Amino acid sequence: MTTPTVRQGEASRIADPDEGISLDELRLAARNHGMPLEALRYDLTPAGLHYVLVHYDIPYVDPVTWRLTIDGLVSPLVLDLADLRGRPRVERTVTLECAGNGRARLHPRPVSQPWLDEAVGTARWTGVPLLDLLGELPEDAVDVVFTGLDHGSDRGVEQDYQRGLGVADLDDVLVAYEMNGQPLPPQHGAPARLVVPGWYGMASVKWLSRITVIAEPFTGFQNATAYRIKTELDSPGEPVTRIKPRALMVPPGFPDFMTRRRIVEAGPVDLFGRAWCGFAPVTRVDVSVDGGLTWTEAELGAAADYAWRSWTLRWDAKPGDTVLMARASAGNDTQPVEQPWNTQGMTNNMAQRVPVTVR
Amino acid sequence: MTTPTVRQGEASRIADPDEGISLDELRLAARNHGMPLEALRYDLTPAGLHYVLVHYDIPYVDPVTWRLTIDGLVSPLVLDLADLRGRPRVERTVTLECAGNGRARLHPRPVSQPWLDEAVGTARWTGVPLLDLLGELPEDAVDVVFTGLDHGSDRGVEQDYQRGLGVADLDDVLVAYEMNGQPLPPQHGAPARLVVPGWYGMASVKWLSRITVIAEPFTGFQNATAYRIKTELDSPGEPVTRIKPRALMVPPGFPDFMTRRRIVEAGPVDLFGRAWCGFAPVTRVDVSVDGGLTWTEAELGAAADYAWRSWTLRWDAKPGDTVLMARASAGNDTQPVEQPWNTQGMTNNMAQRVPVTVR
Repeated sequence: MTTPTVRQGEASRIADPDEGISLDELRLAARNHGMPLEALRYDLTPAGLHYVLVHYDIPYVDPVTWRLTIDGLVSPLVLDLADLRGRPRVERTVTLECAGNGRARLHPRPVSQPWLDEAVGTARWTGVPLLDLLGELPEDAVDVVFTGLDHGSDRGVEQDYQRGLGVADLDDVLVAYEMNGQPLPPQHGAPARLVVPGWYGMASVKWLSRITVIAEPFTGFQNATAYRIKTELDSPGEPVTRIKPRALMVPPGFPDFMTRRRIVEAGPVDLFGRAWCGFAPVTRVDVSVDGGLTWTEAELGAAADYAWRSWTLRWDAKPGDTVLMARASAGNDTQPVEQPWNTQGMTNNMAQRVPVTVR
Repeated sequence: MTTPTVRQGEASRIADPDEGISLDELRLAARNHGMPLEALRYDLTPAGLHYVLVHYDIPYVDPVTWRLTIDGLVSPLVLDLADLRGRPRVERTVTLECAGNGRARLHPRPVSQPWLDEAVGTARWTGVPLLDLLGELPEDAVDVVFTGLDHGSDRGVEQDYQRGLGVADLDDVLVAYEMNGQPLPPQHGAPARLVVPGWYGMASVKWLSRITVIAEPFTGFQNATAYRIKTELDSPGEPVTRIKPRALMVPPGFPDFMTRRRIVEAGPVDLFGRAWCGFAPVTRVDVSVDGGLTWTEAELGAAADYAWRSWTLRWDAKPGDTVLMARASAGNDTQPVEQPWNTQGMTNNMAQRVPVTVR
């Protein structure tokens, strides 16, 4: 990956150690939402349950007047929705996760969208392969810049949402216009969006309006400032790219309304969950039913190219309080039990903890 | 309304005056979600943008084996989904709002689902009129109890979600199986739910499994304890029933990511919003562009029986900071500018405040 040298915008804020969730964070949590974990049951997440992060407002786009412009170092092209839908289509089932998933569990807490565990979802996306739209790229092409119709300000920088992606990372990318067989819902980028399999969700630009091929690394806010992993506020840090391994389980039993603590009946319980990773296949999921003291390998379901795979484990629940945990392994990486920290709360994949009372 | 004499469960909690949003509240906010206010543009709220409050877990219901049982003081009946869909259908466009909308703006803050302004949505529901299913009610019928498949615990009381509704309030009630022309999504009560037009959302029981006609007032947790308006923790209070008037506007301009403060260009701005009330038609919406010092009557769109109506006002925005406000009137009621307080944060309808910077 290229490391931009241009940085923009003020530093993000880190909460005081004993500071509760602020009104600013709550306002984001009330707009954006995670996937309730019981929806891990569905192979394909229904649209209204799939996680959503909208940086600014959901644009109100008329699909009739919408156009997609392709320019820069390739032959310029302007497509309307009928043009796009008329091209050869492909479908890909893709798990997307927000790069900030788990942020609100960090201490001290980086102040931004305060995700806990649920910023994930899997959908079947239908669209046109990006490379079919771009044609042959010239040798001097370095990045492709994707511009959305969502407009706002972040840390003093006014912008259309924009992300650059290196030319080596374009192979599986789709310009998608359907989600689970239906036209895209407004909050998921209608009428057309990018889907970048394997990458955290910030790469999959919604409400796509322009694709520009450029001869230098893109240094816009979302690449150079927002989606960076850094341990010092004033360091440039490393770019956020592909999704790290994560396993999540459907919390067993039933919840208390306010605390979400689970009540489980003693006896055999079939734990069920999903696991995914963006840079290598998930090869193993381990489960602990004693808060991390011991681990047992779960049985894995069918593997998929870009989507989560299921896992199951029979648990013989005995009365008392405990904490259930799950962690996935992929490539040489296994989810940590203790969380490394970074200033913006990016790419956290600490193992899930589910407190339960067995009765 | 009957006032139950049986109360169940511990008192709800009220946050300390300077207490930030707790992890418990955030956990609820990450699962449940409001309607981003820019979605006020849509006459019918797309399913994934309509507010959702799920008390326990979203049940995983197989529509093939699902049954609806009707019993109590009427002829017993068991229906499957095909039976329900085979009956004469009606459609109603209904605005639903959570009784706790606005709760997180109260001082001190009642601790529960921490809504700000957005717990609302309007959908077209298709289903069977409840009274067609019940047939003639006997003279001694007092309440009808609706039981959902969602199961959990609240303040120490384990329960299936249940609500009772008085026999005088059944006229417009639907057992609905479609939302905006599609089968109900899981989070909105698939395969069938109650829709009680005009009432706060707690009355519209989701994942409906049983309808029972009884000869006494229903005294279950959700009627007798949870959905009560009270100013002392240990008082029985009054039941939450029909929706109070409220107006909301699409925040103009564009937002800052973290603070959601709006930036608006100087010049003419067409403010647009919706207004609704569950006990009388909305007859008036007033807008203030100076933080409540002066008010101007907005132009109202077409009235609807159970759904919001639109409103517009041309604003000549001048550079500087201000606060936009809107408030609806219906019957003899007008939204307050200062908020009355109650221990559980129910039926708040304080006028919306939108801080903006005009440049």
